[in-house]
Amino acid sequence: MTYIITPLHHNVMNEAALYIDTLTKPKGSLGRLEELAIQLAGITGTLKPDLSPATLVFAADHGITEENVSTATKEVTAQMVINMLNGGAAISVFSKCIAAPITVIDVGVDALLNDPRLVSKKVRPHGTANFTKERAMTLEEAKQAVEIGITSAKDAITKGARCLIIGEVGISNTTPSSAILASILNIDPATVVGRGTGITNTQLKRKINVCKEGLALHKPNNENGFDLLCAVGGLEIAAMAGAIIGGAQSNIPVLLDGFICTVAACIAELLAPNVNDYTILSHQSVEIGHKIAADHLRKQPLVELQLCLGEGTGSAIAYPILKAAHAMLTTMATFSTAAINYE
Amino acid sequence: MTYIITPLHHNVMNEAALYIDTLTKPKGSLGRLEELAIQLAGITGTLKPDLSPATLVFAADHGITEENVSTATKEVTAQMVINMLNGGAAISVFSKCIAAPITVIDVGVDALLNDPRLVSKKVRPHGTANFTKERAMTLEEAKQAVEIGITSAKDAITKGARCLIIGEVGISNTTPSSAILASILNIDPATVVGRGTGITNTQLKRKINVCKEGLALHKPNNENGFDLLCAVGGLEIAAMAGAIIGGAQSNIPVLLDGFICTVAACIAELLAPNVNDYTILSHQSVEIGHKIAADHLRKQPLVELQLCLGEGTGSAIAYPILKAAHAMLTTMATFSTAAINYE
Repeated sequence: MTYIITPLHHNVMNEAALYIDTLTKPKGSLGRLEELAIQLAGITGTLKPDLSPATLVFAADHGITEENVSTATKEVTAQMVINMLNGGAAISVFSKCIAAPITVIDVGVDALLNDPRLVSKKVRPHGTANFTKERAMTLEEAKQAVEIGITSAKDAITKGARCLIIGEVGISNTTPSSAILASILNIDPATVVGRGTGITNTQLKRKINVCKEGLALHKPNNENGFDLLCAVGGLEIAAMAGAIIGGAQSNIPVLLDGFICTVAACIAELLAPNVNDYTILSHQSVEIGHKIAADHLRKQPLVELQLCLGEGTGSAIAYPILKAAHAMLTTMATFSTAAINYE
Repeated sequence: MTYIITPLHHNVMNEAALYIDTLTKPKGSLGRLEELAIQLAGITGTLKPDLSPATLVFAADHGITEENVSTATKEVTAQMVINMLNGGAAISVFSKCIAAPITVIDVGVDALLNDPRLVSKKVRPHGTANFTKERAMTLEEAKQAVEIGITSAKDAITKGARCLIIGEVGISNTTPSSAILASILNIDPATVVGRGTGITNTQLKRKINVCKEGLALHKPNNENGFDLLCAVGGLEIAAMAGAIIGGAQSNIPVLLDGFICTVAACIAELLAPNVNDYTILSHQSVEIGHKIAADHLRKQPLVELQLCLGEGTGSAIAYPILKAAHAMLTTMATFSTAAINYE
């Protein structure tokens, strides 16, 4: 099963490139903003797109947390969800800075969260299974989680979003991300496993080993996104892959955040050829696997600010750069309209 | 003559660092944003500063333009001033994105500009003199231009600005900037002269030579900011140095843009010890002298987007990163207020 994504509008990209050279600035002097504007034209099929942002945060827990691979306990996932809803988390604050409405979607937090501000779409009530013992989820569950992501993206677009910021919260989620990436690239998990929020050497060793054990036990087909999700998880990674696909299917640019989000984009690319053309990498994280995942997708980050928080924070921080590219494309004067004698 | 700038509030910086570690995120996970927030606390003396931005663009012409060192003719300076006032220039568009009011100050544009939206403060009606033949300006004029910059900064602050974006427009102004930087660093102008808006090889050679000629003819004291300004100019560089000083004197952060602005900050540092602590380098330009000037001031850029437009555009593009750091400091929840069990 693959999802259909149409290729970029290459004719509109050519038109955008020619148009940008008529704007009142030396040719090429806005560097990457010009490339972004051309990509934006290719994604949306117009020289005058809208770029209203929305933030989608997918939340879930991970059975692998019981293997002591994180600095935090499972309950912190639920507590951070509430913090996000209350506006106190980093992603809440940064989304507010850019006027992006934030939606938090529970796809498997291991807690009863009866908060009307939360979108409750639990695929599994306790999160994924411990993948060193059994598969993280079933194929049905993986498909359901991806579909929730697609639907969440399309719901946001129906409400007016024209640029998606995809984030996550889920204690231990760098562990399944590392296992997925190591499998896709056929490399030793030790090369992609990082310290997440700051684990000890003992925990780091255990984190590497659980990735090895899970991959050895389930032997996922590394060209099959669903099989990778079933083998090692996680539910929020599946939903993020879906949201990226949903954005691309609607001709909307999707900002990629750090390690977990970029691994979700690797899954999305397996599930939906062409989806990679619709994404923009917001930042380069200090989490070591992030650059490896980004290189696999041939993505250059917009900023490098030594972030490693997750939640979608890098995307919210970098969104104004895309917004500036958009403003250049849509509102700058041309040499002709401004009557300036400059080639 | 030196301008007095008070040192940063180091006690408030220590307080900020401790406070940031109580926010709901893994320690250090917001990387450079945390450093920015600490600097902001040190500049303003409070953990809850305001950060309302304002853009100040200083415009002037250069006698050196007659030496064919630029792709554009002098009249383009005046035309771009009008374009800025009309909202069509890149800096107008990017300032609008961040809700920064823009003020354009004419300190020596070689044209009669009777536009009520322009702040007319011409120090010399035709801009600087051709510095291969005579000194660019007199000491009185240099002091007057610096004072106009200081006053412009303070006027903006009186109107509510709490973060300054300093920009410029002035055909050929990379030439005096190169001469100033080469003199300060005692290096061959060839190492800092770049192609500006895209000059030919012949023009590049001439640009290097005029810098050498000007410095050989006037032999400025390279520890004296005023003498450097008198020798090679320019009027807008002097005013930008003043605006940087004015911001720092008012305990307001000042964003530095590309090559010309960063050279103005080098002049400001000569005129006002401590001023360097009040500035933040927004971006790394592709103009070759920019990194050399930035290194001299020990500044790391926030973004590197292959820009080389000037006008203050890099600062307006990077301002939202400082805004995010500000939002982190002023509005995120703490572990204690959010009741999260995480150290």
